Amino acid sequence: MVWNAWGVESGHKELSPEVKALISSALGVSEGVADSRAVADVALRDSALTDDQRSGLAGIVGDEFVSIAHEDRLIHAGGKSTFDLLRRRSGEPQAAPDAILFPADHDQVVALLAYCAENAIAVVPFGGGTSVVGGVDPARGDFAAVVTLDLRRLDALVAVDSVSGLATLGAGLTGPQAEALLGEHGLSIGHFPQSFQFASIGGYAATRSSGQASAGYGRFDDMVHRLQIATPRGTLDLGKAPASAAGPDLRELFVGSEGTLGVITAVTVRVHPVPETTGYQGWSFPNFETGAAALRSVIQTGATPTVMRLSDEAETGVNLAMSDRIGSDSGVSGCLAITTFEGTPAHVEARQAEATAILLAAGGTALGAEPAQQWEHGRFNAPYMRDALLDAGVLCETMETATVWSNLGALRTAVTSALSDSLGGQGTPPLVLCHISHTYVTGASLYFTIICAAKEDAIAQWSIAKKAVGDAIVSVDATITHHHAVGADHRPWMTDEVGELGVEVLRAVKAAIDPAGILNPGKLIP
Amino acid sequence: MVWNAWGVESGHKELSPEVKALISSALGVSEGVADSRAVADVALRDSALTDDQRSGLAGIVGDEFVSIAHEDRLIHAGGKSTFDLLRRRSGEPQAAPDAILFPADHDQVVALLAYCAENAIAVVPFGGGTSVVGGVDPARGDFAAVVTLDLRRLDALVAVDSVSGLATLGAGLTGPQAEALLGEHGLSIGHFPQSFQFASIGGYAATRSSGQASAGYGRFDDMVHRLQIATPRGTLDLGKAPASAAGPDLRELFVGSEGTLGVITAVTVRVHPVPETTGYQGWSFPNFETGAAALRSVIQTGATPTVMRLSDEAETGVNLAMSDRIGSDSGVSGCLAITTFEGTPAHVEARQAEATAILLAAGGTALGAEPAQQWEHGRFNAPYMRDALLDAGVLCETMETATVWSNLGALRTAVTSALSDSLGGQGTPPLVLCHISHTYVTGASLYFTIICAAKEDAIAQWSIAKKAVGDAIVSVDATITHHHAVGADHRPWMTDEVGELGVEVLRAVKAAIDPAGILNPGKLIP
Repeated sequence: MVWNAWGVESGHKELSPEVKALISSALGVSEGVADSRAVADVALRDSALTDDQRSGLAGIVGDEFVSIAHEDRLIHAGGKSTFDLLRRRSGEPQAAPDAILFPADHDQVVALLAYCAENAIAVVPFGGGTSVVGGVDPARGDFAAVVTLDLRRLDALVAVDSVSGLATLGAGLTGPQAEALLGEHGLSIGHFPQSFQFASIGGYAATRSSGQASAGYGRFDDMVHRLQIATPRGTLDLGKAPASAAGPDLRELFVGSEGTLGVITAVTVRVHPVPETTGYQGWSFPNFETGAAALRSVIQTGATPTVMRLSDEAETGVNLAMSDRIGSDSGVSGCLAITTFEGTPAHVEARQAEATAILLAAGGTALGAEPAQQWEHGRFNAPYMRDALLDAGVLCETMETATVWSNLGALRTAVTSALSDSLGGQGTPPLVLCHISHTYVTGASLYFTIICAAKEDAIAQWSIAKKAVGDAIVSVDATITHHHAVGADHRPWMTDEVGELGVEVLRAVKAAIDPAGILNPGKLIP
Repeated sequence: MVWNAWGVESGHKELSPEVKALISSALGVSEGVADSRAVADVALRDSALTDDQRSGLAGIVGDEFVSIAHEDRLIHAGGKSTFDLLRRRSGEPQAAPDAILFPADHDQVVALLAYCAENAIAVVPFGGGTSVVGGVDPARGDFAAVVTLDLRRLDALVAVDSVSGLATLGAGLTGPQAEALLGEHGLSIGHFPQSFQFASIGGYAATRSSGQASAGYGRFDDMVHRLQIATPRGTLDLGKAPASAAGPDLRELFVGSEGTLGVITAVTVRVHPVPETTGYQGWSFPNFETGAAALRSVIQTGATPTVMRLSDEAETGVNLAMSDRIGSDSGVSGCLAITTFEGTPAHVEARQAEATAILLAAGGTALGAEPAQQWEHGRFNAPYMRDALLDAGVLCETMETATVWSNLGALRTAVTSALSDSLGGQGTPPLVLCHISHTYVTGASLYFTIICAAKEDAIAQWSIAKKAVGDAIVSVDATITHHHAVGADHRPWMTDEVGELGVEVLRAVKAAIDPAGILNPGKLIP
C-alpha cells in the first residue's frame, strides 16, 4: 500500500467529468486538498528504541526483520481513515513506530511480547493496515517507545480439513492470498469486505470484520472456529468444537479485541467449496422503506441470499453501487437493490426462486442480472474515490452502524440529521448517501457515504461531524460500529456501548493477560 | 417438579414388558435401586442463616418470599443428574439451601446480590432446576450459608417487537410459559431442549442450551440478542444490535456463565412466526458412517432442516428415538434418521426437496413421515425413563459432546471404548446407544445413552465411568459438553477446554464482577 492514500499506486483514480460537474454544482468546490509529499520529505522523529532494545528484538526475529527504515516507518504510520489521509496531506511531522518487527511464527510473537512487556515497549499489531478507525496508529501510551508488529510473514495455509469445511490460516495472509491458497483445494472463505485486497486474516478476526457476502456466509466472527493467540503471558488456543456449552465462549473476547488483549497468529475458519454457480439479480423499489421491508421479508423467511443490499434514493441517483460509473445515470428510479445467490445450481435455484417471489410480492421490479454483476465488478474500487475526491477538495467519509429492523428508520434519520446539522452548520452542507449493507433476521446495518466541501482545517471540520454522528447513534440505541471496529476513533462511545461495568470487565481481562499494558494502548478500551 | 426424580408425578413411567425382558437378558438385572422416601422423612441440616440475615433478605423481597420450609429446601436441593437421583435415593441427609428467595424483579435481584456480597452468603441462581451437571447444587464454598435464588416470579413477556422478530422475556419463564405468551402474538422461539417442559429462559441462556430444532433456529446462544444481568456490582445491559464490531462480544461471557458471573434476569431473544407448516421425513441408512456423511452433505449444502438427527445401529435397534415405544421393534434396519422442515409452505417445500435429493443420493431410503412424527410426539419423555430404569436396578445416564466432522468417528470410538472399559471393568458391561443430535456446517454433537446394571454403590460406579469418558473426550480434542453445560460435574475438564490462561481470564472477570465470590461457588470456574 502507498503511505498516504488507499491501496496501491496503480489503483489511483481520476474523477470523471460527470462527478466533477456534480461536485461543482452540488458542493461548490473547486480547490483540492493539498497534495501529498514525497516519502523522503516527510519528517519523523528518530526511533526511540535504545540500541540494547533493538538488539534484544533482533535476537528474537533476526536482524533483517527489525526495521527502522524511514519508508517502513511511514508505511506503518497508521491506517486509512479520512483523518489518516488528511494527516498525511497536512505537511506536519508524522507519528510513526520506533521500529517495525516482522516475526516469522507464533513462537517469535510470544517471545516478542514477553520482551516488550519486560522492557516497557508498546506493541501495535499490524495486518493489512486498512483500519479506518485509527486501530493501527503507533500510539505509545505511557511508554517511551512503540513497535509495530507486522504479521505478513505468518502467511501459511497451515491445515485444510475439507471434510469439516475448515482451514487454518496464518494471520498475516491477505484476503486474495488466502483465497488463492484455498482455491488450490477448491475451497473459499467467502469473506469479501471492501478492504479485501489488502486486509489480513488476523485483522478480520481482530476487528469483527463483515464482508459483502455476510448474508450467505456470515460475518467473519461467525466463521471463526479456532484461534491461536499470542499474549505477554503465553499462548491461548480457543475453539475446539462447532458448538459448546463449556462456559463462556472466550473466542468472542478475542474476536474484536483489536490487538489490545493479544496477537492473533492463526485462525481456523469455516470454508466452503468454490461456488459452482452464482445467480445475480437487480431490483428497484419505489422508496427506501418499501425496499427495506422487502429485504427484511427475504431474510426473515430464510431464503438466504449470498449478498443482499439496498441503496437509498440519493445513492441510487449517483449510482454509487456501480462504482466504476459513479455519477453516471444508473437508469434506475427509486432505490436499487441487488441480490446474489452462490452455491450448487439446485441450491441457487431454490433460494433465488423463493426470494424472487417475496421481492415481487413486496413491490420490487426485477431489473435482470446486470446491476448486480456491475456492482460485483466494481466493488473494491470505492475507497480509491476518496483520494480522488480529496484531490478535488471534497471530503468523503463513510460511517456505519446497525440496529434492529424496527429502529432502522429512526437510526437513518438520526444520522442524516446529525450530518446535515453538524456539517451544514459549518457552511459545508453534505450529500448523504445510504445503503443497507448487511442484513440479519433481526436487523440490518446502515452504511453512509458523506460528501461535502473540505474546509481548510478538514480534520477539525470532520471531528465535529464524527462527534455528532456518534452521539446520534448511541442516542437511538444503535451500535457505534457494525464492521469498522472501535480503534481510537470510536473509543469515546465504548462506555455507551457496554456500560461502565462492561468496560471494567474489559479492563480486568486486559490486566490479567497484559499486566504491563503494552498491547495497542489507546485503542478500544476506554 | 418432584424432589427425587425427573419432572412431575403424572409423568412417571413404568417399563414396558419388552424393556424388562431386554434388561433381564442383556444386563442381567432384577433388583431395583432403593426406593425414594417421603419428603417429611428426609434429613436436612437446619438453616444456617441468622435471624438478622433472614430479616435483611425479607426486607428486600418481602417476608413471604423468603422460605426455609422443608419441602421448598428439598425441591431446591439440586438438579436432575443421575448423581442427583442416586443421592436422593441414598437415605443420606441431603444438602439443601439455607433459604430460598423468590425475588419479584431485576432490582430486587440486584439488591439481594449486594446484600449477600456484604454478608458473605453464597447465592445459587435457580430456574427450572433441570441441570444434569450439578449446576444448581446448593454449594456454599467458603461461606457459612447459601441461599437459592428462584427466579420463577420473573415471568413477564416484557416486550414484543414483531417487526424485528424479537421478544424480551423474564428469566423465570419456563419453555411452555414463554411459548404460550408468544403464541398470543403468533410467535415462537423454536427452542425445544429435552428439558423444555421445566427449564427456564434464564437457564437456557446461562447454560448455552441447545434445542432439538437447533439446525433450523440455532442454539439458544445464537438466539440471544440482549441480556439484562444483575451482579453484585450492579446491572449489565448487553447487546444492542443484530451484529456489532464494537469490541469483544461481552454477551458471550455471560451466556454460559452458569450463575457464576451474574444472574440473568431478562433475555431478548429472536422469535419467528409460528410455522405455517411442518414437513416430516424418516430415513434409513445402511450404517452410521453413511448416515453421518449424508447429514453432513445436507447441512453443508445449506438446505437447512429444522430438526435433523441420526441414531446409530444400537439406538435404532432399541427404538429409542420413539421413546413411547422404547424397546419395541422399530421396523427400521440400519440407522434411523429424521428430518423436519418448518416455515412457510414455499420455504418448507424448497428446502425439503433439496434435502431429499441429497439424502437419496447419499444412500438413504425414505421411510415417509411417520418416524419423524413419532419422534416429535415422544420427544420430552425420555428423562422419565431414567427413573423407571433405576426402579428396575438399571443405571441410565446420558453424555454429550461435539467435534468437527472429520473427528466424529474417532470421538464416537473413544467415548464408547471408555464406557465399555470403565463399566465393563466393574463387571457391568454397558449398552451404549448414540445419536447425532445437532448438526453444524463444521461438525456435529454426539449424544450417548448408557444403560448398565447398577451396582450397590452406583455413585462410585458411575464416577469411574464419567472420569473415563471426560478424559477420552479431551484426549481427542472434542468439547467436554455440547449442551449440558459444566456445573460441578464437568469442572475438572475446564482447564483442558480453555487452557490455564483461559481459566485465569474467567477468574479475572469473576473477580471484577463478584469480588466476594458469592455467585454459585464450585461451579464452572476451576
